[in-house]
Amino acid sequence: MLPTYLDNSATTRVCGAAADAAYRLMTEVYGNPSSLHTLGFRAEQELTAARRQVATLVGCEEGEITFTSGGTEANNLAIFGASAAHPRDGRHIVTTAVEHASVSAAMDALEKDGYTVTRLVPDESGTLTADAIVAACRPDTVLVAVMLVNNEIGSRFPIEQAVPAIRRAAPRAHIHCDAVQAAGKLPIRASRWGLDSVAISAHKIHGPKGVGALYLRKGARLIPRQYGGKQEDGLRPGTEAAPLIAAFGAAIGELPPIPQQMAHYDALRRHLLSRLGDNPCVRFHLPVGGVPYIIHLSVPGYKSETLLHFLAQKEIYVSSGSACSKGAKSPVLTAMGLPAEEIDSALRVSLCRDNTIEDMDRFADGLLEAVEKLARKDRNYV
Amino acid sequence: MLPTYLDNSATTRVCGAAADAAYRLMTEVYGNPSSLHTLGFRAEQELTAARRQVATLVGCEEGEITFTSGGTEANNLAIFGASAAHPRDGRHIVTTAVEHASVSAAMDALEKDGYTVTRLVPDESGTLTADAIVAACRPDTVLVAVMLVNNEIGSRFPIEQAVPAIRRAAPRAHIHCDAVQAAGKLPIRASRWGLDSVAISAHKIHGPKGVGALYLRKGARLIPRQYGGKQEDGLRPGTEAAPLIAAFGAAIGELPPIPQQMAHYDALRRHLLSRLGDNPCVRFHLPVGGVPYIIHLSVPGYKSETLLHFLAQKEIYVSSGSACSKGAKSPVLTAMGLPAEEIDSALRVSLCRDNTIEDMDRFADGLLEAVEKLARKDRNYV
Repeated sequence: MLPTYLDNSATTRVCGAAADAAYRLMTEVYGNPSSLHTLGFRAEQELTAARRQVATLVGCEEGEITFTSGGTEANNLAIFGASAAHPRDGRHIVTTAVEHASVSAAMDALEKDGYTVTRLVPDESGTLTADAIVAACRPDTVLVAVMLVNNEIGSRFPIEQAVPAIRRAAPRAHIHCDAVQAAGKLPIRASRWGLDSVAISAHKIHGPKGVGALYLRKGARLIPRQYGGKQEDGLRPGTEAAPLIAAFGAAIGELPPIPQQMAHYDALRRHLLSRLGDNPCVRFHLPVGGVPYIIHLSVPGYKSETLLHFLAQKEIYVSSGSACSKGAKSPVLTAMGLPAEEIDSALRVSLCRDNTIEDMDRFADGLLEAVEKLARKDRNYV
Repeated sequence: MLPTYLDNSATTRVCGAAADAAYRLMTEVYGNPSSLHTLGFRAEQELTAARRQVATLVGCEEGEITFTSGGTEANNLAIFGASAAHPRDGRHIVTTAVEHASVSAAMDALEKDGYTVTRLVPDESGTLTADAIVAACRPDTVLVAVMLVNNEIGSRFPIEQAVPAIRRAAPRAHIHCDAVQAAGKLPIRASRWGLDSVAISAHKIHGPKGVGALYLRKGARLIPRQYGGKQEDGLRPGTEAAPLIAAFGAAIGELPPIPQQMAHYDALRRHLLSRLGDNPCVRFHLPVGGVPYIIHLSVPGYKSETLLHFLAQKEIYVSSGSACSKGAKSPVLTAMGLPAEEIDSALRVSLCRDNTIEDMDRFADGLLEAVEKLARKDRNYV
């Protein structure tokens, strides 16, 4: 039996088309895209084709896409690059208290550097209104950074609805959106929404780890973070990771239509709720309007890590929160004011197109078995 | 007939073992190394194994290796990270005038930021003495960055011989070495030599583009350039590019012993010199003590790009200098004071273990044919 992999918001299995594309560029089209000969041109053509795919995915022009080493670099480039590009426009930043570490740690660094950072906390339902984002903006706000989908509980923040009012309240602000957990699964219309930058990552959508992209609106300005050759118009120098970039494009080409994906995730989530929703041991945290492919729950009295290892022995893989935090207490759940017993016992089930109803059953069965078997010896853990 | 690929200092074909390792991690061991379940642990084990390979390659402990997205990021991390870590120790930097763009452009940025940068120019023979490096050091020198092998003409700079005297002349300096064009082909003993940091890249040694590594001496301190999760001990956050890192390790495992490689490159270079060394149209620039796998030559009166395209039509691939500069006049050759007609007609032939005597013959034949056929219409270009 195949493992039941339900940790797709941490990373996904690379799809065949993407892995094949990477392999082909490693062994056949292996030229340096900057080389002036045929092998270089062929590699450059692959970059162009992939850039077109990414541009379509986020809803922008090809020339507005810069490839990076991943979501972390894309978020860092936008945040530090935008604040550095506006040295005299102000020192105020608006963000949320539940961003991914690649945003929140960058904000902490800017705060140490003298910036004032307003961190919006989602309400009890896990959501944030467009009005709340706008209300935090000031004339000296130089950066607004709000994620599209929260990586732990799956909230969908309406940053796009806030853009026009942000422009009025903070005319000099750069508006950035970390869309790493949204791209490929929700529609993104970067240009139409009027965002200045959007970060995405390949390995969350069946592409490889080590490549991401930043949409940067034509006319928006960033100070580069890396210095070197002239690649990516100087915004991100360094030999392009052509095999990964081609694989990124191929992975996008394999994405099923979004409505089809959503129906699939909805069905899986409904099934899981039908199995566990009424169980008094399990508490679901489903933000209003949240995405169906991230299902967050707690089993108060049990420790996340114990549950996770119990399930892993049955080849059922989930996470205790963001992969990056690796065991640390979730700042996201803490910010949202969840009770300690729910934070300590939290599990994240995150779906991809390959998951099935049987996967949901295996997880539900496994969790119920854990609750029963671990009861005596491990409940005292907490 | 296979193409004659002689642009191995720009990038190399990924070897089978490395491409297979990347494929395996993309499709089988696809967990996030930070995930707390079995799939995560397995990915982490792959990182550990690759880290061991890299540590052996550069002569250090595993814990002293940080994976990056490539040589450019590794050089940037060392240069900006070291200067930021010594804010009160001084504002003077020693480097060469012939570094790779990822070093020279970083130096330009620091210069704009108030640092004084001494750029050492190699002598006419293309070399630089250890004494010259030491003589440039001052008590307020915070960074010395000298490449091990020049990427355009193949000079071997004796930075390791200068280390003890640099420590006396500039006790607070961080000593960095860009060894991208040396790793895997020349012995590197980072610890024994007493260097603080060394940058290397996978794609120059039959590993994939998109991954590099920085050796950082235990006890040496850098301020990170990227903010996010806790990966790479916080020095380089972001989900590790596990498929590329495993491929990097696999590529190192396939490297033939260095003496065997050197004998091979020597034989190829000798053969090429036997074919073209006495030809009055061709001028070789072979630095004293330079490496045999980078062969730099000029054909005065002909334009590099014209020669390069003529050869490319015969599937013989060389470069006109560093791939990153993409057609721009080489700052390296300019710094070395080569006559304009030699700069404009320069070609770099760069070798790997797969090249053969037949490749040298094809290049020599192709170049002689170019000299003959292009004579009438293209000489006037220059």
